[in-house]
Amino acid sequence: MAARSLLDLDDLSSAEITELLARARAFHAAPPPRTLLRDVCVVNLFFEASTRTYTSFAIAEARVGADVVALPPGASSLGKGETIADTALTLAAMGVRAIVTRHPESGFPYRLAESFDGHVINAGDGRHAHPTQALLDLLTLQMEFGTIAGLRVALVGDILHSRVARSNVFGLCALGAEVTLVGPPTLLPDAMVCAGVRIERNLDRVLPEADALMLLRIQRERIASAVLPSLEDYARNYRLDARRLAMLRPKAIVMHPGPYNRGVELTEDVFAFPGWRYAQQVSHGVYVRMAVLDLLVNGFESARGAERVRSA
Amino acid sequence: MAARSLLDLDDLSSAEITELLARARAFHAAPPPRTLLRDVCVVNLFFEASTRTYTSFAIAEARVGADVVALPPGASSLGKGETIADTALTLAAMGVRAIVTRHPESGFPYRLAESFDGHVINAGDGRHAHPTQALLDLLTLQMEFGTIAGLRVALVGDILHSRVARSNVFGLCALGAEVTLVGPPTLLPDAMVCAGVRIERNLDRVLPEADALMLLRIQRERIASAVLPSLEDYARNYRLDARRLAMLRPKAIVMHPGPYNRGVELTEDVFAFPGWRYAQQVSHGVYVRMAVLDLLVNGFESARGAERVRSA
Amino acid sequence: MAARSLLDLDDLSSAEITELLARARAFHAAPPPRTLLRDVCVVNLFFEASTRTYTSFAIAEARVGADVVALPPGASSLGKGETIADTALTLAAMGVRAIVTRHPESGFPYRLAESFDGHVINAGDGRHAHPTQALLDLLTLQMEFGTIAGLRVALVGDILHSRVARSNVFGLCALGAEVTLVGPPTLLPDAMVCAGVRIERNLDRVLPEADALMLLRIQRERIASAVLPSLEDYARNYRLDARRLAMLRPKAIVMHPGPYNRGVELTEDVFAFPGWRYAQQVSHGVYVRMAVLDLLVNGFESARGAERVRSA
Repeated sequence: MAARSLLDLDDLSSAEITELLARARAFHAAPPPRTLLRDVCVVNLFFEASTRTYTSFAIAEARVGADVVALPPGASSLGKGETIADTALTLAAMGVRAIVTRHPESGFPYRLAESFDGHVINAGDGRHAHPTQALLDLLTLQMEFGTIAGLRVALVGDILHSRVARSNVFGLCALGAEVTLVGPPTLLPDAMVCAGVRIERNLDRVLPEADALMLLRIQRERIASAVLPSLEDYARNYRLDARRLAMLRPKAIVMHPGPYNRGVELTEDVFAFPGWRYAQQVSHGVYVRMAVLDLLVNGFESARGAERVRSA
Repeated sequence: MAARSLLDLDDLSSAEITELLARARAFHAAPPPRTLLRDVCVVNLFFEASTRTYTSFAIAEARVGADVVALPPGASSLGKGETIADTALTLAAMGVRAIVTRHPESGFPYRLAESFDGHVINAGDGRHAHPTQALLDLLTLQMEFGTIAGLRVALVGDILHSRVARSNVFGLCALGAEVTLVGPPTLLPDAMVCAGVRIERNLDRVLPEADALMLLRIQRERIASAVLPSLEDYARNYRLDARRLAMLRPKAIVMHPGPYNRGVELTEDVFAFPGWRYAQQVSHGVYVRMAVLDLLVNGFESARGAERVRSA
Repeated sequence: MAARSLLDLDDLSSAEITELLARARAFHAAPPPRTLLRDVCVVNLFFEASTRTYTSFAIAEARVGADVVALPPGASSLGKGETIADTALTLAAMGVRAIVTRHPESGFPYRLAESFDGHVINAGDGRHAHPTQALLDLLTLQMEFGTIAGLRVALVGDILHSRVARSNVFGLCALGAEVTLVGPPTLLPDAMVCAGVRIERNLDRVLPEADALMLLRIQRERIASAVLPSLEDYARNYRLDARRLAMLRPKAIVMHPGPYNRGVELTEDVFAFPGWRYAQQVSHGVYVRMAVLDLLVNGFESARGAERVRSA
């Protein structure tokens, strides 16, 4: 049986993303038996502190009945002379079937997957990718609008440094959304992987036509590093506030991967907006991660087809 | 269903404390089925290192069959720009039903409970409260003497800085004990929450009449901060030693929340005293925490009555 | 029921080692029911970061159905004024039945076992002992060669500072292997506990006659501390490379406890050698640890005999 990993969304075909979202919806509708991953050992290998993503994975793992070993930051001896390849070999030899990993370094999960005879799930690597966040965002859009094809989705803020944005663009393009990236030029990429992605500096021009906004976190460090002139400047042009919320279409929704900076990328008006979907996103995260574990370990139906991009 | 938390003992009516102790005694007599908290997710959010309290909660959670996510010190990203309210909202959205939390800051669990749509259990916050320690002390007294009403209980030592003392005074008063606080004036509070609590500087005067002594930990830092003249001085007046043990009534018991400082608040003679109840206290802690989890999540019988002090 | 610990291999008689290896082989052949340690609470009390040993124990504990409480480095309050004896008493009072512990200090598990009314399993203490590593090495030899009696086993490298070497020598002698210690004089002990252990400086003389080599990790710190003249010097005399592999007998195997230093005690040629058994060792570690937990908690058959060396 071929090992199969989720390192970024381009690991999955459109058919596999669709199957995965359907599986997550099924788990949302009715909890599966706690035997889906019976006798399957999953290691959580986290090199960054994390409440949100770690807890979401831990809950998902419990609900599918896996054996879970937690290696929180500082508990692992990896790095102390041992190579990633040796760690991968060692965990596989113990019978570990899947590793969920978060690392400050872009590409870490890829190097782990190269050597690991099992499934690697990227829970966020540097500025690179965060595929399960993108999947939960897709699930939120799908449950809201029924379909993603043709939806106008605007990502707003620090696109350049965001692993969430990168993974979301992959997924949105794969499922046929019309994607617009909005932000100051210093926070926008020069080129984007998917054809047809539009780049826009003026948020107010985008608001009246968007079905969904995905706000991104602005890190205060960006000011210090002179990429942004000032938070006031950012807020004037891009912060979502009462005036801008009023420009949105009646059924538009607003999303954020969290944690959000109150007063920077949004004001508290957003929390009262009927289309604010943060809590739903978080809730969907657990179902998406259950589906990822289930399909990676037990196999995709759609993998029997031909559209596969990669199998490792 | 209203969420309900245990932040301090004044969250519980006398009837609820009594019901909780009865439930703990029932679990002590016969282990409950491991399905009491089936499919209920509990997060242990600890911001202070802890062996005793953490392990006791973890064992209790396993025995009632909860799904447990451990966030040890350093593993959580809370505080890095994210507010307590956002963390509470996020965990609730994931389906977390209860949070057990320890924090060096007094009041932290209250701020968490304000925003969390679920149960918060305070496992110790700063100098403020430690309600499950007080409950296990009450259980120990009840199992020893049958009833707590009318018992003469003396708390000895650093009452002022002790979260254990504060919570115990609430509980002892609620169940009708006669409470005496004993210690040097710099370690005694000016006023006590409960009417009828007696304050006494002379330990030797209290010993012949007490049914139970609760010794408290003296932290060596108190000397450095000039609140205590010297450990020798403290020991001369308040340390429990062979001479003072001999002054106790035949059936009197001695308790300590641990960890104890040998040679400071007690000598090793105490460990051989027939009424030394430290091991029983620790053992009762597991049953009390099982009962807290069970009753908070599954509901108090007595909550249908009217005596409730607070429901959050 | 007498408590019983595994602090080093001399805690076990030859009959008990044999029984333990047989139990591990049985678990390897067919996974036991996950009820072997039902309602048994095991605490993992680790004071050193560890991926390999920690994960192996955690998997073993899950597979035998224990309740597991993890106290990773930094999570325990032990040492902050509390004695080892107090911690042992406290955990026993909570109903903890076994403690798996790793500590940088030689002898720590012994001091814990003196006070703990339950089973202590040493997962590595300083330079002293690592009995479960030795047991998995013995299992690897036994599954390879059928029997250990009469096997010629050479331990190569830093014998002096290796807890793995110490424990292995005990076990190999108990089961009748012919043991040779190979390395530079500064890394060899003056005397060895077992009679008949041979000491040899010239690795090339040992290779043609060995059934198994156990390579040990060379820590780069040894150079700094002037115990070794240089890594080049060590490599010239003791590193296992293509030339030396060619000198081994056709069925000889090579083992290493991990993590290995590529280029120091071995070259990458070793990974392609048909007798390289690292992955098997790691895999066997889980079965050995399941067997240790099972037999310590549920009792040895052979303990009814008379050959016991120690029971604590």
